Amino acid sequence: MSLERSENRTVLSIDAMGGDLGPAAVVAGISRSAKINPDLHFILHGPEAELRRLVNRRRTLAERVEIRDATDVVTMDDKPSQVLRTGRNTSMWSALEAVRAGEAEVCVSCGNTGALMAMSMIRLRKLEGVNRPAIAVLWPSQNPAGFNIMLDVGADVRADARDLCQYALMGVSYARNGLDIKYPRVGVLNVGTEEHKGRAELKEAHALIASLADDANFEFVGFVEGGDIPGTKCDVIVTDGFTGNIALKTGEGTANLIGTLLREAFAYTPLSRLASILN
Amino acid sequence: MSLERSENRTVLSIDAMGGDLGPAAVVAGISRSAKINPDLHFILHGPEAELRRLVNRRRTLAERVEIRDATDVVTMDDKPSQVLRTGRNTSMWSALEAVRAGEAEVCVSCGNTGALMAMSMIRLRKLEGVNRPAIAVLWPSQNPAGFNIMLDVGADVRADARDLCQYALMGVSYARNGLDIKYPRVGVLNVGTEEHKGRAELKEAHALIASLADDANFEFVGFVEGGDIPGTKCDVIVTDGFTGNIALKTGEGTANLIGTLLREAFAYTPLSRLASILN
Repeated sequence: MSLERSENRTVLSIDAMGGDLGPAAVVAGISRSAKINPDLHFILHGPEAELRRLVNRRRTLAERVEIRDATDVVTMDDKPSQVLRTGRNTSMWSALEAVRAGEAEVCVSCGNTGALMAMSMIRLRKLEGVNRPAIAVLWPSQNPAGFNIMLDVGADVRADARDLCQYALMGVSYARNGLDIKYPRVGVLNVGTEEHKGRAELKEAHALIASLADDANFEFVGFVEGGDIPGTKCDVIVTDGFTGNIALKTGEGTANLIGTLLREAFAYTPLSRLASILN
Repeated sequence: MSLERSENRTVLSIDAMGGDLGPAAVVAGISRSAKINPDLHFILHGPEAELRRLVNRRRTLAERVEIRDATDVVTMDDKPSQVLRTGRNTSMWSALEAVRAGEAEVCVSCGNTGALMAMSMIRLRKLEGVNRPAIAVLWPSQNPAGFNIMLDVGADVRADARDLCQYALMGVSYARNGLDIKYPRVGVLNVGTEEHKGRAELKEAHALIASLADDANFEFVGFVEGGDIPGTKCDVIVTDGFTGNIALKTGEGTANLIGTLLREAFAYTPLSRLASILN
């Protein structure tokens, strides 16, 4: 089956085998997305027979999904270097190749992040002028968009001032195009908001990012603290991959702990239990 | 009034003027603590007349509090270097002097952390062998003690392998004496649990701390991630003051966001509102 061309058509290349829940969850996800966005089309990579069966069950996906057979899978334990050598038949590799060949605009995979990163670097390469790629995360926030963008959350444990500056520009672009924020506000993560605080590379990044704000059409709010990541002070939070990863996992861990404590509390009184069921 | 000596008597030197809520909150706090711990005595530092009035209202505190008049206060905006030069009449300085003079075992202040740190370094000095002081925090956790200890959360933005190793030993001591954990488990905060992960100083710290575990009578669990800070994998989490501070504030920010979202959700149905009141 080949996909029809149209003006607003966007093609997503999807690794059906990434993610802990297997291809059924991925197909359910793209089906939900297809319902909301009529212009989306999908190239789905994985074992053809299984994917065909899952896709055929969803009427929304009729005529909108092309399936590319890929017999191998990158597991969560695979070493990135190993995958680069032997991963040519994996669904992840196949998904990236569709972007490389210009058949799709975007590749989506919920699989092994390190392998995806390494494979993307080698097969897709970086944009001109980008020194280090970054992993960005959408962090639930009280801003109107509902999310803030934080990057890097783990592509590289180090980042110098120039890298942080590039992350700022990438984050601004994502905020503008992905979250529809026309004039994104950027903050650099630090241990205090005063300009003299923190490590040397952060002070340098502060000056560098401030000098770009006018030309690149964003607002630089300066240093922000951990508490501002889910806050309303900025839309884009810039940090190195070490700090970003720790912050991300600390946030997740805190949310999990609160969830557990709440479930215990809700189990405590019959009325609160009832309320938790009704909500 | 002078305090009676007894076998298990512990004297706490308390800065009554630290904290956002003023001396009334501090006196309420020590009164609550005095009720639970009959062996505690207090030296309270601040404006004498005001403190006398607050203490006299609490019967639990009768014969257990000595008041030291201190007319000045360190504010949250005071620069540590400035306080060192001109802070001799502050309640914080007075509170530290009682420990320096051997009249109290411990000094407690909820005031300006930077000033307290600087003043402690100059007036009390460090223990023999300790290179850098650290700020420790008790982090709510699902361990039996109810808390994990994380350090450093902001005394110094940098820490080398030797510093991290000292933080481990200080954390173990706190866990043993403060939380009654006989055989504390120590983890080093990193972006993954595999030994090859993270920055060079972390790998070095890993080897150094592992080599001390037997002699210092603790268990070293290796690298832990952000999600383990409130978890059950270890009791002591060791990190540099930059990362620790970001993690601490991210955790607080996440908890605040969830709190706000919950209040909104609870306001949504009358029954859940009732449950939130009853709980």
